Amino acid sequence: MKYSDRMGKLKASEIRELLKLTTKPEIISFAGGLPAPEMFPVEQIKAIVTKIMDEQGETALQYSPTEGYAPLREAICGMSDFESTVDDVIITSGSQQGLDFSAKIFINPGDVIICESPSYLGALNAFKAYEADFREVETDENGMIMEDLEKILKETPRARMIYVIPDFQNPTGRTWTVERRKRFMELANEYDLPVIEDNPYGALRFEGVKPPSLKSFDTEGRVIFLGTFSKTFCPGLRIGWVQASEEILNKYILVKQGADLQTNSLAQREIYEFVANYDFEGHIENIKNVYRGRRDLMLESIEKYFPKEAKHTYPEGGLFLWITLPERINTKELSYKALEKNVAYVPGGSFYPNGDKQNSFRLNYSYNTDDKIVEGIKRLGEVITEALKA
Amino acid sequence: MKYSDRMGKLKASEIRELLKLTTKPEIISFAGGLPAPEMFPVEQIKAIVTKIMDEQGETALQYSPTEGYAPLREAICGMSDFESTVDDVIITSGSQQGLDFSAKIFINPGDVIICESPSYLGALNAFKAYEADFREVETDENGMIMEDLEKILKETPRARMIYVIPDFQNPTGRTWTVERRKRFMELANEYDLPVIEDNPYGALRFEGVKPPSLKSFDTEGRVIFLGTFSKTFCPGLRIGWVQASEEILNKYILVKQGADLQTNSLAQREIYEFVANYDFEGHIENIKNVYRGRRDLMLESIEKYFPKEAKHTYPEGGLFLWITLPERINTKELSYKALEKNVAYVPGGSFYPNGDKQNSFRLNYSYNTDDKIVEGIKRLGEVITEALKA
Repeated sequence: MKYSDRMGKLKASEIRELLKLTTKPEIISFAGGLPAPEMFPVEQIKAIVTKIMDEQGETALQYSPTEGYAPLREAICGMSDFESTVDDVIITSGSQQGLDFSAKIFINPGDVIICESPSYLGALNAFKAYEADFREVETDENGMIMEDLEKILKETPRARMIYVIPDFQNPTGRTWTVERRKRFMELANEYDLPVIEDNPYGALRFEGVKPPSLKSFDTEGRVIFLGTFSKTFCPGLRIGWVQASEEILNKYILVKQGADLQTNSLAQREIYEFVANYDFEGHIENIKNVYRGRRDLMLESIEKYFPKEAKHTYPEGGLFLWITLPERINTKELSYKALEKNVAYVPGGSFYPNGDKQNSFRLNYSYNTDDKIVEGIKRLGEVITEALKA
Repeated sequence: MKYSDRMGKLKASEIRELLKLTTKPEIISFAGGLPAPEMFPVEQIKAIVTKIMDEQGETALQYSPTEGYAPLREAICGMSDFESTVDDVIITSGSQQGLDFSAKIFINPGDVIICESPSYLGALNAFKAYEADFREVETDENGMIMEDLEKILKETPRARMIYVIPDFQNPTGRTWTVERRKRFMELANEYDLPVIEDNPYGALRFEGVKPPSLKSFDTEGRVIFLGTFSKTFCPGLRIGWVQASEEILNKYILVKQGADLQTNSLAQREIYEFVANYDFEGHIENIKNVYRGRRDLMLESIEKYFPKEAKHTYPEGGLFLWITLPERINTKELSYKALEKNVAYVPGGSFYPNGDKQNSFRLNYSYNTDDKIVEGIKRLGEVITEALKA
């Protein structure tokens, strides 16, 4: 069969293949980006669905507007740290769909997307389907390095979009400083580029002060903000959103119509009911308390079991931290040794779209219980120690 | 803001704009393709969700495999009239998503999609986002005309995909004969093209004998079958599927991963529970009985109130019938006159991708209750009669 040119750019995700290996129950997996399932509001869903069926069952099961359920879109505006009205919001099937649409709307084959180095693998995969090229901007503990961004903007006339995750970045867990955010928006304005601000983790801050979103500094309507309920409610319902200025949002609506008409009518109402009539803020506090504890335990265990040559980030929130080993260690090869000891992570190479750095890996701390975190990090420590000796 | 070239091909759907006008309660709308909401299993959903939450709540709200929920995929195989295993099925967010993916997988800009004339507007819109061109094959009461298909195949070296709706077609309600289906597959094989067999209505046959699917005649794994629960269960949950041979299905999985990771985990289980543990066949029988009655009433009313110059199709199932007026009548202009009398349909022009036929329109008979069907057709009859006098 003859396929389109874009299919040549797509390969099965390494994470996906890895996750298949890690479903064996004896494996302690830090690989997935899974929320803690014991925090899901299982009992509440029963009451919520009964209420929705009693009050508006036929509507909740019928076709509904492409933009999404208006009360949920209004609630999202109320959760934003920038000016936004219901007309600026479209509900998507997870924020992954917002990523796919962004490339569909802005990218021709061969156009360049500027992103952080490293960046979120799932976004890179979505963008590759539109035959994008990538330029990676260097990052440090304070986020994207603005001098490098400016240099790359100057050198890259085919740049058409900037994709960033300023809060508790996937994969590093790092957060951009306010100064970087301001400078970033100056540069985005100067080079007249749309900005995709991907913010799946921002609500999960364990400590420190929340910096304002990029969109809150956006005076020209060029930031497209992607949010999701996957980490604050649950991922299985696939409810995310896009917030953008009207002209741009209309493009997302147009694309959504062709892509899948609308997001699940019932799921939108389920989340709205929870946000409106349950203690959503208290629920997020509970999640944060659990994740903070797990992050602390993972960091302690790393201090205890990892050799000093392994450097880690210190995330103030979110789901991930990032380990960097000496350059001579290839973490993809190391991952097979880890699997032999029944422990898994995601090798860092997958997060570099131009694929040239192999000595880091991502650890998820939200999913596993305390005993597994300690035991898994201990095993990983042994694997790393052995590799450093070789 | 600078958008991708493909955005130049996309316009807001006329149906969508029309549907906005028809939400006023005084309007009798035959425009949408809405199932009858009073048939939705509202009470059953309450019991089903409680059971799922009790038995597997955490799993049903967590991330799940891109391919979809295995028991549902197996149940779909059991409903098929062709050989199919669980590995041949991916669950999609409605069959609209299967349409979008099909063009993504097979179409480069400027490639040609061969379709029926007229064809389903929502599919044409999905395909336009991939900058496809269209060749339309003539149709009659027995479906696509094979002599015209053969001629077009000969003339069209850039043909890359054939898109058809052989059962109760949208918009005409027509069904292809078995002879045409066999000849069609010979031609598809000869020209080595993938076939998208879109079958959202096939389960809703009111009378006559069900012809075998195209896929059941497919000896070379080139037919991609799209199904949906939107018309047999409800559309709001957005559960459809794609069935294809393994090589092709792997492309759909790859594309699904980038597009939205997976379909709603809970919704897949909701539908599986209904199919497995409730009287799904009896439920479909109930829907068919209601729709058969509405079709009959609409046809009777058409005989009574429409002038003889208005020709109609006779659908043996599905949701739609198709009215053809004398060529001098422009049904788009006529639709505004109809709206003045508070009755709506979809003008036929939207269903021709190359946009050159304006004297037909689509009527939906599944949604409205009996009194509205009679009153709406009566009003439409007046509008048509007046137009013919002019």
